[in-house]
Amino acid sequence: MNDNDTILLDHGAGGKVSHAMFSELILPLFDNGLLAKQDDGAVFEVPAGRMAFSTDSYTVDPIFFPGGDIGELAVNGTVNDVAMCGAAPLYISVGLIIEEGMKVFDLKRILQSMAGAAKKAGVRIVTGDTKVVPRGKVDKIFINTSGIGLLPVGVNVSGNGARPGDKVIVSGTIADHGVTILSEREGLKFDSDVKSDSAPLNHMVKAVLESGHPVHVLRDPTRGGLGTTLNEIAVQSTVGIRLFENRLPVRGPVRGICELLGFDPLYLANEGKLIAIVPGTNANKVLDIIRQDEFGKDAVIIGEVTDQDPGRVVLETLIGGTRIVDMLTGEQLPRIC
Amino acid sequence: MNDNDTILLDHGAGGKVSHAMFSELILPLFDNGLLAKQDDGAVFEVPAGRMAFSTDSYTVDPIFFPGGDIGELAVNGTVNDVAMCGAAPLYISVGLIIEEGMKVFDLKRILQSMAGAAKKAGVRIVTGDTKVVPRGKVDKIFINTSGIGLLPVGVNVSGNGARPGDKVIVSGTIADHGVTILSEREGLKFDSDVKSDSAPLNHMVKAVLESGHPVHVLRDPTRGGLGTTLNEIAVQSTVGIRLFENRLPVRGPVRGICELLGFDPLYLANEGKLIAIVPGTNANKVLDIIRQDEFGKDAVIIGEVTDQDPGRVVLETLIGGTRIVDMLTGEQLPRIC
Ligand SMILES: Nc1ncnc2c1ncn2[C@@H]1O[C@H](COP(=O)(O)OP(=O)(O)OP(=O)(O)O)[C@@H](O)[C@H]1O
Ligand SMILES: Nc1ncnc2c1ncn2[C@@H]1O[C@H](COP(=O)(O)OP(=O)(O)OP(=O)(O)O)[C@@H](O)[C@H]1O
Ligand SMILES: [Mg+2]
Ligand SMILES: [Mg+2]
Ligand SMILES: [Mg+2]
Ligand SMILES: [Mg+2]
Ligand SMILES: [Mg+2]
Ligand SMILES: [Mg+2]
Repeated sequence: MNDNDTILLDHGAGGKVSHAMFSELILPLFDNGLLAKQDDGAVFEVPAGRMAFSTDSYTVDPIFFPGGDIGELAVNGTVNDVAMCGAAPLYISVGLIIEEGMKVFDLKRILQSMAGAAKKAGVRIVTGDTKVVPRGKVDKIFINTSGIGLLPVGVNVSGNGARPGDKVIVSGTIADHGVTILSEREGLKFDSDVKSDSAPLNHMVKAVLESGHPVHVLRDPTRGGLGTTLNEIAVQSTVGIRLFENRLPVRGPVRGICELLGFDPLYLANEGKLIAIVPGTNANKVLDIIRQDEFGKDAVIIGEVTDQDPGRVVLETLIGGTRIVDMLTGEQLPRIC
Repeated sequence: MNDNDTILLDHGAGGKVSHAMFSELILPLFDNGLLAKQDDGAVFEVPAGRMAFSTDSYTVDPIFFPGGDIGELAVNGTVNDVAMCGAAPLYISVGLIIEEGMKVFDLKRILQSMAGAAKKAGVRIVTGDTKVVPRGKVDKIFINTSGIGLLPVGVNVSGNGARPGDKVIVSGTIADHGVTILSEREGLKFDSDVKSDSAPLNHMVKAVLESGHPVHVLRDPTRGGLGTTLNEIAVQSTVGIRLFENRLPVRGPVRGICELLGFDPLYLANEGKLIAIVPGTNANKVLDIIRQDEFGKDAVIIGEVTDQDPGRVVLETLIGGTRIVDMLTGEQLPRIC
């Protein structure tokens, strides 16, 4: 397939042209023996134990943005959701829905990003599906990824595991992805290094879990941001969560854009950050481990779990007052991921 | 949520309104403990052994049609792809991409169909994702499903398993789904019982595999139809396949519509049929087992595997000649599934 060619309906018809695209474009990039069999699904051995299974669809606009693209986002997103279950992600599926007329050049870039992201995370893309819909019936390309992984023996993390006395760690600065998409969408060209934080978190999770320090909750604060995700946890665990505004890590330029446009970084999406809720006694050790990861350098303890106001997240503000942090209400930014 | 409400961007923002939709609409319908945990993915025990993993996205237009809808299609399609690997499907994921403005009433119907199809197939929808995109950015609703299942010990089916001397069984009439969508799309209102064959095939596969009769290939002839699927198998197995036109099961009204509109039933999609390729000595026994299944009553042996013209499918026509059946070239019908 030539870079200047465009995707035709035929590429999604399941016939000769679909097969050619699979052989010439997809298989060489995702390169693995399970995919090469071209059966209705991938078949592989699994050991006895617990498995995690997750899915996400990606509709982000624009599809290319500073720090990544829809393909990288799609792989990292599902890798992260599987990792947030405490599992080591292994296999990923990909479902492409492409708009007729897309440039092969753009599709190739996206598939290359997916292949690169899979390699970095150490997962394999073993099964997939490709649909092409007529012009105007989908905006450029939507991608679904699903993933499975295996849980180590003894690991038990869940949104309902937070306990009073636990500390809340965030693995780095917040709102980077949200602000990046926002800026692109608004056509803002800041002379700054604002870029998406899209990253795989499975290696970080593995290091933390292998350390043997107990971990109660892991979750990636994506859509809805840190504020919404902590509310989910507070509800699921029937606990209060207290945050300290002065500890919230927000990059300067990100904070600047938020102030300019009137957005609260607590509600903007992250695509390469996790929240870890761990017993207070071990929090500093877990923090150290997270900081050793490539994507955890800026990790900090931002709050604690309490037995007050179960289901509520409260923020201790810079000026010493407190305010309730509710879940996101209203759509700030459609097609953020 | 009220039937007359419409879906807003907010339903896909991951905040309060998204959570309400999950609790009020999705969870009650898909009703199961794994989903109820609302974690980043579902976690469950698996025994040691071989697992199959598959995915498909559905963009069918119209979303409601005689014999089914996009929701039922999405569940059955992935159940069937997992089953075609020789596995018993267990768990399904669902990724919804909804156009802003969709009627809650329509979404509910689709989710009810998914729940019903899951129940019929005996699988559980354990994890999912919901995105809403602005009006005009997607046509009504697209659905991805992925699925996993377990292979019984000793089962080995693959598109590369066909051997000269094998017989080719199809589990029922062909082209029903394709002709149904075609007729709806063209606004043809035939006074006939033309309807989609969307159905779960996992129970049929289970009965065949449990019988202990060897099975070399299982595949569902979806996009591209029987003709394309048999070509895939001929290539993967490096064998010839010989079909007998007088044995191809096509319902009268389906044949009529094909003749009227100039379509070849060999290239039209099926959504509830399988091809089984089995050793000639056991073919009649396998046929009997398939016929006992609710969705296999019209199963027939339609051809045989040969060592002539490897990679080719040849049709012995009604008038005694032969013609080559190639893979589908050109898109007959976009958004068939
Ligand atoms: N985008 C993709 N990435 C990776 N693999 C893909 C992709 N698209 C298709 N494949 C692989 O190509 C093969 C054929 O896919 P296809 O979707 O045609 O099969 P199917 O699901 O059985 O048919 P249908 O989609 O019509 O139901 C499968 O092995 C599938 O995993
Ligand atoms: N359509 C759906 N069907 C079934 N379950 C769903 C559906 N949509 C969401 N869920 C479930 O709701 C919970 C929250 O889903 P959500 O997509 O917000 O989580 P996430 O993937 O971690 O976040 P994000 O999508 O922002 O990355 C999950 O447990 C998910 O399985
Ligand atoms: Mg198939
Ligand atoms: Mg996610
Ligand atoms: Mg497919
Ligand atoms: Mg998540
Ligand atoms: Mg399929
Ligand atoms: Mg999600």
